[in-house]
Amino acid sequence: MFEYRAPLKDMQFILHDVFQISSRFTDLNLNDELSEDLINSVLEEAGRIAETLMAPLNQSGDEQGCQFEAGQVTTPEGFVDAYRTYASGGWIGLSGDPEYGGQGMPKLLTVSIEEMMMAANSSLALYAVLTAGGALAIARHASESLKQTYLPKLYDGSWSATMCLTEAQAGTDLSMLKTRAEPEGEAYRITGSKMFITGGEHDLTDNIVHLVLAKLPGAPAGAKGVSLFLVPKYLPESPDQTNGVSCGSIEHKMGLLGSATCVMNFDQAKGFLVGEPHNGLACMFTMMNYERLTIGLQGLALGDASYQVAARYADERRQGRSARGTQSPDDAGDSLLVHADVRRMLLTMRANSEAARALAVYVGSQLDIAHYHPEAESRKKAEWRVAVLTPVAKAAFSDRGFEACVLGQQVLGGHGYVREWGQEQKVRDARIAQIYEGTNGIQALDLMGRKVVYDRQGMLDDLIGEVESFAQELPGSQAPFAEGLQNALSDLQAAVAHVRSASVEMPDEVGAASVPFLDLLSIVMYGYMWARMSMTAQSKLDSGEGDSDFCQAKIHVADYYLRRCMPKTHALRKEIEAGSDSVMSMPAALF
Amino acid sequence: MFEYRAPLKDMQFILHDVFQISSRFTDLNLNDELSEDLINSVLEEAGRIAETLMAPLNQSGDEQGCQFEAGQVTTPEGFVDAYRTYASGGWIGLSGDPEYGGQGMPKLLTVSIEEMMMAANSSLALYAVLTAGGALAIARHASESLKQTYLPKLYDGSWSATMCLTEAQAGTDLSMLKTRAEPEGEAYRITGSKMFITGGEHDLTDNIVHLVLAKLPGAPAGAKGVSLFLVPKYLPESPDQTNGVSCGSIEHKMGLLGSATCVMNFDQAKGFLVGEPHNGLACMFTMMNYERLTIGLQGLALGDASYQVAARYADERRQGRSARGTQSPDDAGDSLLVHADVRRMLLTMRANSEAARALAVYVGSQLDIAHYHPEAESRKKAEWRVAVLTPVAKAAFSDRGFEACVLGQQVLGGHGYVREWGQEQKVRDARIAQIYEGTNGIQALDLMGRKVVYDRQGMLDDLIGEVESFAQELPGSQAPFAEGLQNALSDLQAAVAHVRSASVEMPDEVGAASVPFLDLLSIVMYGYMWARMSMTAQSKLDSGEGDSDFCQAKIHVADYYLRRCMPKTHALRKEIEAGSDSVMSMPAALF
Repeated sequence: MFEYRAPLKDMQFILHDVFQISSRFTDLNLNDELSEDLINSVLEEAGRIAETLMAPLNQSGDEQGCQFEAGQVTTPEGFVDAYRTYASGGWIGLSGDPEYGGQGMPKLLTVSIEEMMMAANSSLALYAVLTAGGALAIARHASESLKQTYLPKLYDGSWSATMCLTEAQAGTDLSMLKTRAEPEGEAYRITGSKMFITGGEHDLTDNIVHLVLAKLPGAPAGAKGVSLFLVPKYLPESPDQTNGVSCGSIEHKMGLLGSATCVMNFDQAKGFLVGEPHNGLACMFTMMNYERLTIGLQGLALGDASYQVAARYADERRQGRSARGTQSPDDAGDSLLVHADVRRMLLTMRANSEAARALAVYVGSQLDIAHYHPEAESRKKAEWRVAVLTPVAKAAFSDRGFEACVLGQQVLGGHGYVREWGQEQKVRDARIAQIYEGTNGIQALDLMGRKVVYDRQGMLDDLIGEVESFAQELPGSQAPFAEGLQNALSDLQAAVAHVRSASVEMPDEVGAASVPFLDLLSIVMYGYMWARMSMTAQSKLDSGEGDSDFCQAKIHVADYYLRRCMPKTHALRKEIEAGSDSVMSMPAALF
Repeated sequence: MFEYRAPLKDMQFILHDVFQISSRFTDLNLNDELSEDLINSVLEEAGRIAETLMAPLNQSGDEQGCQFEAGQVTTPEGFVDAYRTYASGGWIGLSGDPEYGGQGMPKLLTVSIEEMMMAANSSLALYAVLTAGGALAIARHASESLKQTYLPKLYDGSWSATMCLTEAQAGTDLSMLKTRAEPEGEAYRITGSKMFITGGEHDLTDNIVHLVLAKLPGAPAGAKGVSLFLVPKYLPESPDQTNGVSCGSIEHKMGLLGSATCVMNFDQAKGFLVGEPHNGLACMFTMMNYERLTIGLQGLALGDASYQVAARYADERRQGRSARGTQSPDDAGDSLLVHADVRRMLLTMRANSEAARALAVYVGSQLDIAHYHPEAESRKKAEWRVAVLTPVAKAAFSDRGFEACVLGQQVLGGHGYVREWGQEQKVRDARIAQIYEGTNGIQALDLMGRKVVYDRQGMLDDLIGEVESFAQELPGSQAPFAEGLQNALSDLQAAVAHVRSASVEMPDEVGAASVPFLDLLSIVMYGYMWARMSMTAQSKLDSGEGDSDFCQAKIHVADYYLRRCMPKTHALRKEIEAGSDSVMSMPAALF
């Protein structure tokens, strides 16, 4: 068995060398104290917690799962203590509002911390990240009095939060919600049943704060008639008396077995409006967008954890001989690392994980600029980047992360299929990241519809411009990358032109192109990240600073991505250009 | 919940209309009685068994799993009765040698039957297909006396068979085997420990016949020193006394939980040589090649079963509205089938499954020709096809089958991740097909090494010639397919030329190109199958015979495959042309 090691060196390279966050983000007024040293100690401490507190409970948590009895959920052994230790370190409120007890850390830093927690123990991490996301929605949209009552308890981890959207008949389509909210004085009585509620009930915290979508009397039909309510399990004024909130059952799932997925029943539960009436979806999206990036990180994290095991296994396992002739004559066989196809699998995993890690920091930094930058124009541009790249991060990180877990299982052969090595658990745990927080198909539709076809502001074009300028300005030593990026960009632009034009007459073009388009854009963005990393690594090597092995590896993996992964843009463009007719022409009855 | 329905109509279309087996295979002298009616009744009866006997035990088998206690394995409830009923129908000996009680049915028919059993209940089917494969190795290589003793019992299902290759230190690399065989009179004493033995111990049959790879004293080093032995759990002459064979434990796996995967210990167990000394690998490959096609069928089967659930779910589930405007105003939402991206997922699943089904029959027919054809030249050409296409069938069917299961889970959203709907079980069950019977990476190496680069006979070129002639002779109405096939063939030929030339100096080119090359060849072959099916369906439509809906659907799915899946060959060619340097240049220490 190989243990998880937090990828601190890569995170530091991305934060300090590639993005130079300490010097480049000074105008955000948030990092007076955000020195390189402080960042490094925060990362190191988070890495220690991930490795020593959370990872050791990952496999046992999977084996035991959550238990449900008489409305109560018991989490696996050790989860309660670990969660409390984690919370008491202030990690849940890390990016929270300092006025209410948060630490005010920028998102570009918390992405790395969330990645480590997700890699070490996704089930346990999920309770924490949902709480942080819920707190964010409350901080942005709730009344001062709700903020004062709830935020400090959420930030310090004594209470947790959930997101209650889905109902049996209403998953992706939230206009079909049936949960109702009846006014009662300043508050509301919430009645209805929600399903697939992560952390809806558990034994980790004293109270659970549900953010519930429901309809007010006389609400307009459709998604515009939905409001957001804060509904605690226990009202703070009567902590011994339940508030009409109960857990009906938990789901039996493929993975993430330490995370309780609950049916939650609200029976005249007292709740409080968050944000304006009928504006609940917009408020919930504050939480959803935060969670979407985090769920992308789950995919990336598990893919990286799987790489770590696969790479170490491949190094130690002796089977067969190198095609070039025996490399380790004293051993019964050569290391698996002599085999080109084993390397192909490992390099694919690593090329996607490390690009995603850089892109996560990029998106995190845009979130920070959008929130903290003094100039409106900078905030607007950053908001565009976030709008375009959030669905890409959620879907591409989780798709490539799942694929990485499958490859990391394949490297171990039969040992990857048995439970002992933990590789199959990562496949099961990573799979959900492609489904929850809006399926990856929905992410792609959001991207293609709102941010490409109906993009009146030119959000996508602005991003393409950034990558294009970067590619044009690459030094001569990076000519292959400049060419690779240009080729990928021309496929991307052809795809955009096709869909924008074809969708005028054929509304189904948007959905028919959406998933291959998201893949295409993600390859352009991963290529952009690899070009930046490759260039940075080369200049560190040239100047003789830094870890030469590390920089060499970056350059090798970048080259692999450029030469073996980027050519996929061609097929994606062709798939998009095939048009909606190729999927819509078959009558429904023939499926 | 939706139940499995055997895809009889598609099987009959492929067998009778596309391949015209009753008329085209008369010269094999095996099918005097193999009329269309007989074939249809065999298929229908097999479908009934799959649907009503095996499928109902699939989910409960997964929930209960196999139990191990004191050396005994208990299979899930109902497995014993179902297996005995299945065996008593003569299904295990279906393609067996009639001289010893087999039914002598051709492989082109049994592939369809195996597919249905694998789709209905892979765990249960596995005990049967391993027995059929073991019987095949015995029929081809064992002595007359072994055949008389063992074959009738294997064909009638009262005994089962296993394949004992893997040891802890020797998985892919069988030269590292440590199990020993000491001669004792006419027989041998076998001592050693094997792992990952499917069906090594269970309660379904009275006896278990192990085919064990072991080394004779003084055997040459490496894979050439391995011999094959038949080692029964009970010797027929003393059925109450164990023969030094015991099960040490069973594995805890990701899926296929109703199939016992055993550690088998042989302690001076009495065994009998099968085939010549030191020629065990060749004998075992008779079984392995049979199983490789069957394991490919497992992937295809589960992908099709997943499609069936996903398509019916998509039809019934109401979420959102069509991009073209509301289609079902009386319902709360439109069917999922209005959404282009849901159709994309379903069409991808179906395009790959139906092409694989046709290719399985094609490979099955080549196996029959290779075995039964009176002319040596025809047998030789058929052997070439089998040699080239067995790794493609094993790896591509299982890779695309696994991907289909993942898509079929995605269509159901959160309902795909919970156990209730059975979609997540299919993902877990299908995953092993990419690993066992030689990982898909090993299949690709076998293809690329033995059948492309070191192919002195021109086996691959002969196959390419067949597809090329077919494409050139396509009627004008199939011009897009002719063009699509030509494009794919030119990518394939460029890839072949690159690897043949580059591998002269760089032996790692073979391994670096192998997996993308197998994918590329599989796309060409799937395209070939789709062109044949599309042409056949069109001519049935033109002549007014057959089921018009069925033929229309074939043409739509063929068009989808042509336009949206086949362009992938370009990226695969680029990946291959990137060369081995892109994977080999990074020093092993940097992984």
